[in-house]
Amino acid sequence: MKEKNNAVKNLTMLTDFYELTMANGYLSNGYKDTIAYFDMFFRRVPNDGGFAIMAGVQQLTDYLNSLSFTQEDLAYLRSTGIFSEEFLSYLEHFQFACDIWAVPEGTPIFPGEPIVTVRGPVIQAQLIETMLLLTVNHQSLIATKANRIARAAQGRAVMEFGSRRAQGPDGAIYGARAAFIGGCCGTACTICDRDFHIPALGTMAHSWVQLFDSELDAFRAYARQYPSSCTLLVDTYNVLKSGIPNAIKVFNEIVVPQGFRPAGVRIDSGDITYLSRKARKMLDEAGFPDCKITASNSLDEYIIRDMLAQGACVDSFGVGERLITAAPEPVFGGVYKLSGVENPDGSITPKIKVSENVAKITTPCFKALWRLFDRETGKALADVVTLHDEVIDDSAPYEIFDPDHVWKRKTLSNFRAVRLQEKIFEGGKCLAKEKSLQELKDYCARQVDTLWDEVKRFENPHQYYVDLSLELWKVKNRLLEEHNI
Amino acid sequence: MKEKNNAVKNLTMLTDFYELTMANGYLSNGYKDTIAYFDMFFRRVPNDGGFAIMAGVQQLTDYLNSLSFTQEDLAYLRSTGIFSEEFLSYLEHFQFACDIWAVPEGTPIFPGEPIVTVRGPVIQAQLIETMLLLTVNHQSLIATKANRIARAAQGRAVMEFGSRRAQGPDGAIYGARAAFIGGCCGTACTICDRDFHIPALGTMAHSWVQLFDSELDAFRAYARQYPSSCTLLVDTYNVLKSGIPNAIKVFNEIVVPQGFRPAGVRIDSGDITYLSRKARKMLDEAGFPDCKITASNSLDEYIIRDMLAQGACVDSFGVGERLITAAPEPVFGGVYKLSGVENPDGSITPKIKVSENVAKITTPCFKALWRLFDRETGKALADVVTLHDEVIDDSAPYEIFDPDHVWKRKTLSNFRAVRLQEKIFEGGKCLAKEKSLQELKDYCARQVDTLWDEVKRFENPHQYYVDLSLELWKVKNRLLEEHNI
Repeated sequence: MKEKNNAVKNLTMLTDFYELTMANGYLSNGYKDTIAYFDMFFRRVPNDGGFAIMAGVQQLTDYLNSLSFTQEDLAYLRSTGIFSEEFLSYLEHFQFACDIWAVPEGTPIFPGEPIVTVRGPVIQAQLIETMLLLTVNHQSLIATKANRIARAAQGRAVMEFGSRRAQGPDGAIYGARAAFIGGCCGTACTICDRDFHIPALGTMAHSWVQLFDSELDAFRAYARQYPSSCTLLVDTYNVLKSGIPNAIKVFNEIVVPQGFRPAGVRIDSGDITYLSRKARKMLDEAGFPDCKITASNSLDEYIIRDMLAQGACVDSFGVGERLITAAPEPVFGGVYKLSGVENPDGSITPKIKVSENVAKITTPCFKALWRLFDRETGKALADVVTLHDEVIDDSAPYEIFDPDHVWKRKTLSNFRAVRLQEKIFEGGKCLAKEKSLQELKDYCARQVDTLWDEVKRFENPHQYYVDLSLELWKVKNRLLEEHNI
Repeated sequence: MKEKNNAVKNLTMLTDFYELTMANGYLSNGYKDTIAYFDMFFRRVPNDGGFAIMAGVQQLTDYLNSLSFTQEDLAYLRSTGIFSEEFLSYLEHFQFACDIWAVPEGTPIFPGEPIVTVRGPVIQAQLIETMLLLTVNHQSLIATKANRIARAAQGRAVMEFGSRRAQGPDGAIYGARAAFIGGCCGTACTICDRDFHIPALGTMAHSWVQLFDSELDAFRAYARQYPSSCTLLVDTYNVLKSGIPNAIKVFNEIVVPQGFRPAGVRIDSGDITYLSRKARKMLDEAGFPDCKITASNSLDEYIIRDMLAQGACVDSFGVGERLITAAPEPVFGGVYKLSGVENPDGSITPKIKVSENVAKITTPCFKALWRLFDRETGKALADVVTLHDEVIDDSAPYEIFDPDHVWKRKTLSNFRAVRLQEKIFEGGKCLAKEKSLQELKDYCARQVDTLWDEVKRFENPHQYYVDLSLELWKVKNRLLEEHNI
């Protein structure tokens, strides 16, 4: 038996090679002490949804806290022959010094918003790009998908069952974490219970039923083993002809006499809508109206919605591959762009990336992100991106306007303005306190409740307002004109 | 600076909770010494392709070699209150004892084939299900996608650029590994070069260009830094009006005078087919016909195919999110099913899972997988799944038949019959030698060459024959009749 081995891995070298070649070049070109500003933002919600869920900040924090280059790393980099000794020495004595602001995990987020902002030496701010994006992209993808699936289930339990189809061990582990934040109530993945206290759930596979001489023998053995939590998989041979009748027999024979109620049955194949209704009837007639029916088998938010619309009698859903990989849209397209450079006098030169693809034009400046909530209903009215030092005075009416169609204006009043980003690093020191996953999950549910139903529907959701303050809009347009676009 | 920290993580607890509840139940029900047989197989090639590429066996081996339960694991399991002390003691003294056969990494594989076969104590064979599937599913998914993309590029270089959109750190690292086996020539991910010797490639991001006062300044600085490998990103402002002219100026001003040739330009947005043709003309006219053009920006096999069909002048492709996540089909649906149980006398009772979904019916028995190659052309003619002890005599003609439509028969002659599975564990001891990734990549390319073009096309590929031997077919049909299906 070995010792505990789940320490946070040093992923410093999980960075795109060009981050290193650029950093080396920044150093050679006199940018060692240059302070740069970068934003992470995304351009489109997967599945054309109305919003996404922020996640992955804790793992970003873990990564940043363990940033350091080993002798082995330095030897490898030296062997490539393209890095200066000055740069290698910089890496050897690397001291993380950035300030970082991030939207808290579980918060609904929208395209174009600075969900993470980094201020720091350009060499460092560049080096962390890859892992910053990887971590937040991955977990936001899965939290967003889980939230969609949980909403489709209309309050029924959704369990994350996808480990075996995850994209690598981390995909399973951090995917289950993000799914819990987004709305799942448990996972099949044992290590996530041990390490994150996400309830691990599960009963039996078909192999259990096959191993015994008969389905009835298999059910009896399971019921004797776990009488207080007896959920039986009923589709190994034939759900209605053998699975349910055998389950009822065993519930009566073993579970009830021991003073328990049957926990449930699981159906993993066939037409689950039809089978669940028939099974429900059989269980009810046998005196087990409290026996739950769980469904699995390549489910997603659309299938669950349709099953419930057709009257499926399902109490909980086990969702595997399409949750853990976010099929069919397995990418959260967050990007990380330079927004400004600090001058020696402390002023900031805003930076923009223009592009022939208009959607790829960035918003310059050191920014802040605000959410405006209606004081009466508590609902989110709009988000506004401002210059970092601007303050939205919520004691007075505030005019928002569409940055692409400036004649579309609206004046808001009786609202509460909240800054969404929290400072999680200052001068390289971590300020963030780890929150329990249950806290993050509860916070997420409360925040999603602040969105109007129009933003939450799957088809053609209302496009939530994400506007720029007038000051910020002016800077952006000045830069665009300078670049003659 | 910290010490090396890339040891193989102990992922023993990355197992579905039901593997543990079942294992506990097997022990209680007298199955401690029962030897079971399981197969991993998949049912469908992603993207309706004609074949997949096997990958992930090395990481499966690493996982199995480090299987062990820590005191912390045992304490956690005990705390759930559902495991017997006998079982916890079994885990504490866990000694892996299975035999495992696997198809080598890089081999083309087809639906219905036993790509991994496990023989061993049913408790153990059950416990390893989750990670076995996770590892082989993930890497086979990415190797298969990479092979498609590499084939679409028709010999041009394809680089894996997807770390920032990967599903977790392991998704980036093992994804890059699988992509290299499948046909990529390099990766953006530095840690993969350090640990796997996959060439790490990359030049600059838009932030480099933005940081300097002008694009020209940025290009000059880069060329001075890396004159021998100068690839410039030309789409920050305007590819044809500023990017290419500035690149040409800098090549003439700095690269050529130092005795080098320009390495290339990269285009990351806009209509790359159009822009690359114009850029090619400008570079040629400037005397740089050897300057390569690299394209990136949400590419995949279909976009690359169409770009080349329309005459795009691209020499190499950087492929990111759609490779590293295998979008839009991010799941390789491998499953793991019980195929037999050994009796005390050494005979094997075959096991089958029937289902109302015909596609979910399994093939019973301890099996072997053969590939038949034409001796004249070297091409793969058919695969045959046999009983494990059967031998296909390739000195005589051999009749194959379609297991679902038995009147479809064909007699093969002048072929070479090869067993595809290799034994990688015997009695829990690892037999496999680690191969270099370059070996696996070369092997993969040679094996894909044995497939007819008809099997390799993207649209409606020919369905390669995967037949059952007559002996195996008889057993399967007998069991189906016994289950009255």
